[in-house]
Amino acid sequence: MTSGCGNRGIEPKGGAEMEESIEDRVASLAKSCRSLKEAASAHSSRWQHEADTLSKQAINHVSTLKKLQVDVGSASEKDEIDQQTADKLEEELYRARTMLYNGEVSSLLPAKANGVFLRMLLGPTNVRATLKDGRYKVKEEYNAYRDRTALMFLAFPVILLVLKNKIWNGCFPALPVQVYQAWLLFFYTSLALRENILRVNGSDIRPWWVYHHYCAMVMALVSLTWGHPSCIRKQQGVQLFLGWAVMQGVAMLLQNRYQRRRLYTRIALGKAGRMDVVWGETAGVKGQLGILYPLLFILQGFQFFIGILLLKTAIVEDKSEWQIVVCGLLLVLMACGNFINTVATLVAKAKIKSKMNKKSK
Amino acid sequence: MTSGCGNRGIEPKGGAEMEESIEDRVASLAKSCRSLKEAASAHSSRWQHEADTLSKQAINHVSTLKKLQVDVGSASEKDEIDQQTADKLEEELYRARTMLYNGEVSSLLPAKANGVFLRMLLGPTNVRATLKDGRYKVKEEYNAYRDRTALMFLAFPVILLVLKNKIWNGCFPALPVQVYQAWLLFFYTSLALRENILRVNGSDIRPWWVYHHYCAMVMALVSLTWGHPSCIRKQQGVQLFLGWAVMQGVAMLLQNRYQRRRLYTRIALGKAGRMDVVWGETAGVKGQLGILYPLLFILQGFQFFIGILLLKTAIVEDKSEWQIVVCGLLLVLMACGNFINTVATLVAKAKIKSKMNKKSK
Repeated sequence: MTSGCGNRGIEPKGGAEMEESIEDRVASLAKSCRSLKEAASAHSSRWQHEADTLSKQAINHVSTLKKLQVDVGSASEKDEIDQQTADKLEEELYRARTMLYNGEVSSLLPAKANGVFLRMLLGPTNVRATLKDGRYKVKEEYNAYRDRTALMFLAFPVILLVLKNKIWNGCFPALPVQVYQAWLLFFYTSLALRENILRVNGSDIRPWWVYHHYCAMVMALVSLTWGHPSCIRKQQGVQLFLGWAVMQGVAMLLQNRYQRRRLYTRIALGKAGRMDVVWGETAGVKGQLGILYPLLFILQGFQFFIGILLLKTAIVEDKSEWQIVVCGLLLVLMACGNFINTVATLVAKAKIKSKMNKKSK
Repeated sequence: MTSGCGNRGIEPKGGAEMEESIEDRVASLAKSCRSLKEAASAHSSRWQHEADTLSKQAINHVSTLKKLQVDVGSASEKDEIDQQTADKLEEELYRARTMLYNGEVSSLLPAKANGVFLRMLLGPTNVRATLKDGRYKVKEEYNAYRDRTALMFLAFPVILLVLKNKIWNGCFPALPVQVYQAWLLFFYTSLALRENILRVNGSDIRPWWVYHHYCAMVMALVSLTWGHPSCIRKQQGVQLFLGWAVMQGVAMLLQNRYQRRRLYTRIALGKAGRMDVVWGETAGVKGQLGILYPLLFILQGFQFFIGILLLKTAIVEDKSEWQIVVCGLLLVLMACGNFINTVATLVAKAKIKSKMNKKSK
């Protein structure tokens, strides 16, 4: 089907054999380019046509799937089918779902539109993974990015706290703190961008974890405008924030480790699409609940405490900056949101567990 | 080729006709999903195979084109062909180039990798336009974004300057200025992101105009950390910067108007790929050289002047902030870079003009 677009006769056949004039060579190239243009055009429209046909089928299957999921549920409730049959059917539907939402079929389903955040920064740019790379690569890269940056997230405040005591005589200079705040702004922006791209590529990341990064971006930006905090008055807030950041860094490293392990387990069991992201949730690996959940709740409590402390300062002081109020409110908001979402995750987990226990009985 | 993946028999044939049991319906869906998966897989690999074949040809043609461009040039220099023939051949090669670098063929050429800036913020995410939308849409959206934001770029400082005299008694409060600085940071970041995406999609935008936006991002970030400038000491710098921004806003609106008109003219003449971006260059429309170039040079001079003024302040004052020095240096750097690149554009234009004059003689 690509006949006529080969480039035989275009390239000079060795330097010696120059009977072909330069005019002929140019004309030959022009001809080949026209053929290639036609072939590419035909290839593209044929591909588009096929993709449209398959895409319609995929959309049909998705709606059938949704209908059947409801029907199985209601049939099971009305005792038209027994529990065992219902479980079997649900599992079959889950497998059908995996076939539709993973791999090549998923790229035939209509793309989610870019959210407001992506549209603001990138416009309506296409950010879907290529068919060749697959969406999996986006997810892998996101995980790798979290791993790399978690180390920096931990190292930055540790270095600041060490230098404060060793070199700076207990008082932060403005510049290093501002560099850290600028880095936080960049870090949270890149996370929010990448998470939005994951969503477009079909990830089911909980919306809160993305909103949470918007709040963190605003806080980093606001803290940049704070100017130089005098040593006596405001550095307690900075110190506390750095302490929280160290703990958060450790939690991030733990989470990344456990979640990746859990994701691989779930992929191996065929239970998770590869695009699942579970930031802030915990892994199903034994022994981790004992470390990670308490740490997460302590972090949230600490975050809440720093927020309240800032708000208290703002109320007590006469001439307090608006930045203190905004940062305090944002910290309280983030702590509450994180807490609610972590609890919601725990509840969802408990439900699944009780269901599985019921089944195994 | 998509036989076997239709979904006949899956959906219930009307509510009344429910002979088909729910088990059968689930089994039928599962079967259809498997077929669809296979069809999508086959479609995708066949497409990939065809695209690879066409892609190799496109790459071959590009290298032949480059070789021929050199050959025509040297043949013309050695007087092996006369000027008229050389011009004809060059034009033919230009048309061949347009066929390769525009439309469907261009999407078969290997993509430019994401630059450092994109990799930092988005990772290796695919940002190429879809075959369906085409790269043209990215360019159109970029132009529309520049139009929308040029108005804001103009309105923001105008409002600040008016409010200063009408309401604020000649003295800027901190918050509005900081909001403006934060908006600038966002604006330049989004421009830099979009321009990098344009480059990946094959635009030939001059690298300086992207670097220029990195400088502007750093300056916006640094000015955010400046804290509240006291009315007497530092507001002269702010005032001057706002004055410059008003002029820059007017220049942006003029540039957008002329460049879009020029781009359409060039597209109509078949002389420009649709991806060409000419920020900071001028349109070839008559009468504009008389307005835009002087305005651009005045702007650059003014930018340079503000930069030097800031540096002088830093030298004269004893306890000057580092932000003044950095902003001063960045302004001087941007002014010089803008000047050099505008002159380079003028020189390139003059060369083309003299060549065309030679031809028409």
